[in-house]
Amino acid sequence: MTTDQLIHQIKIKKSFLCIGLDVDLNKIPVHLLKEEDPIFAFNKTIIDATHHLCVAYKPNTAFYEAYGIKGWQALEKTINYLNENHPDIFTIADAKRGDIGNTSTMYAKAFFEDLEFDSVTVAPYMGKDSVEPFLAFENKHTILLALTSNQGALDFQTKKIENQELYKKVLETSKTWKNSKNLMYVVGATKAEYLADIRQIIPDSFLLVPGVGAQGGNLNDVCKYGMNNYIGLLINSSRGIIYASNDNDFAEAAASKAKELQEQMALELNRHL
Amino acid sequence: MTTDQLIHQIKIKKSFLCIGLDVDLNKIPVHLLKEEDPIFAFNKTIIDATHHLCVAYKPNTAFYEAYGIKGWQALEKTINYLNENHPDIFTIADAKRGDIGNTSTMYAKAFFEDLEFDSVTVAPYMGKDSVEPFLAFENKHTILLALTSNQGALDFQTKKIENQELYKKVLETSKTWKNSKNLMYVVGATKAEYLADIRQIIPDSFLLVPGVGAQGGNLNDVCKYGMNNYIGLLINSSRGIIYASNDNDFAEAAASKAKELQEQMALELNRHL
Repeated sequence: MTTDQLIHQIKIKKSFLCIGLDVDLNKIPVHLLKEEDPIFAFNKTIIDATHHLCVAYKPNTAFYEAYGIKGWQALEKTINYLNENHPDIFTIADAKRGDIGNTSTMYAKAFFEDLEFDSVTVAPYMGKDSVEPFLAFENKHTILLALTSNQGALDFQTKKIENQELYKKVLETSKTWKNSKNLMYVVGATKAEYLADIRQIIPDSFLLVPGVGAQGGNLNDVCKYGMNNYIGLLINSSRGIIYASNDNDFAEAAASKAKELQEQMALELNRHL
Repeated sequence: MTTDQLIHQIKIKKSFLCIGLDVDLNKIPVHLLKEEDPIFAFNKTIIDATHHLCVAYKPNTAFYEAYGIKGWQALEKTINYLNENHPDIFTIADAKRGDIGNTSTMYAKAFFEDLEFDSVTVAPYMGKDSVEPFLAFENKHTILLALTSNQGALDFQTKKIENQELYKKVLETSKTWKNSKNLMYVVGATKAEYLADIRQIIPDSFLLVPGVGAQGGNLNDVCKYGMNNYIGLLINSSRGIIYASNDNDFAEAAASKAKELQEQMALELNRHL
């Protein structure tokens, strides 16, 4: 998917919501556990109930790998279901991969070719040659971790390196990499003011913002500091939507929570565009 | 496996060799492609030919994920084969994972419980709460990326943060984390002199050293600067061993390359212990 196509979808749906499909078998409605593939059954029901309210889905690979082969089968079924039924929706493999050159190419093949995701999250620690293999894929997007929403972000990311916080150094440096136009960035919303600084460095890029809701960010502030002329924001919510209820009404509850966020987003889009 | 058991194995085998099982179907002997599971067939043959010469095997997950479900099945068969036939061998899932707390727990379950590896490699960028969930597992080891052997290591890892290179900051900080005794570290051997500094910070920890051979390090220097009283080194070789030949004699060729390294390691052990 191209960035223009993503922007087009956001305008049509009046939504820049990304729904995180982080399926924990201890948290889904018990009646689904009788299904042959409970993870996929849960995802399919959530997707059917919410696809008109969001522009992206983001399965976190950890939740699938924890269930071994069955988990990977569920991940494969989920991405295939999305690509067949909702090709206009942007898909994110939240995998936080990264390795030396030829090995990163193998990861890129796994997520862009074997599973056919539109994008994958990548960790920056190993530098340029660990990220560029992902950037080489046409119309695929590499979402680089910059500032994450967890407490541990303070251990290294916000420490100063050459008079600049490490996460800003990552942003600056990544702009010099080959095919950097295919980069997006993970930026936590725990302090929305950070977004103003970040927009100084990467005014045009899309930001994937976790941490609105469960992790404690505020949508209004995120838009105030983070939105650009091309919108430039995908806001993720996982648990707040998919676990809104763990009873028979879980799909309606998820849709209702997604609708709440979509309506706030429609207001923000009206205000900013 | 405990660290003491690993050290015991090193002394018995006079080897601290780790063999990287990075299987690329374009590089293995073509006759294996007729097998039902060529990746596992290759691994099994390599393991059968080399297990007496090494103390660890390290499949890099990228090479398995690139082949989708079949790749994961091959990875599962490989770790099961190792655990059933060679329980004394240390196993490393080279996965370079890391995510926020509850998500890292899912990754730890994937590699320590579902696949039953002894250890997993983890990226430090997201800090303390992304690594501690791995450290919580008894007799399992978390091998933290510190200084990698690729060119991109110079982008961030060797840059100064609070008057100290980032990789040293990672080493220092990680020592304060809960259950840090379960930490080992990835340290590239591109400049063996770095190891002297590293040993100042973490004198007792095991180091997993890639980059001897294909990536250009020197075994003698690595041992001079990196070996401690508990040996403290696992030296990895992947392509140099497993692709020593791509003909019918590939297993013998791999064993011969492994034997060469093992004999050098026996000399180093005699010299240092």
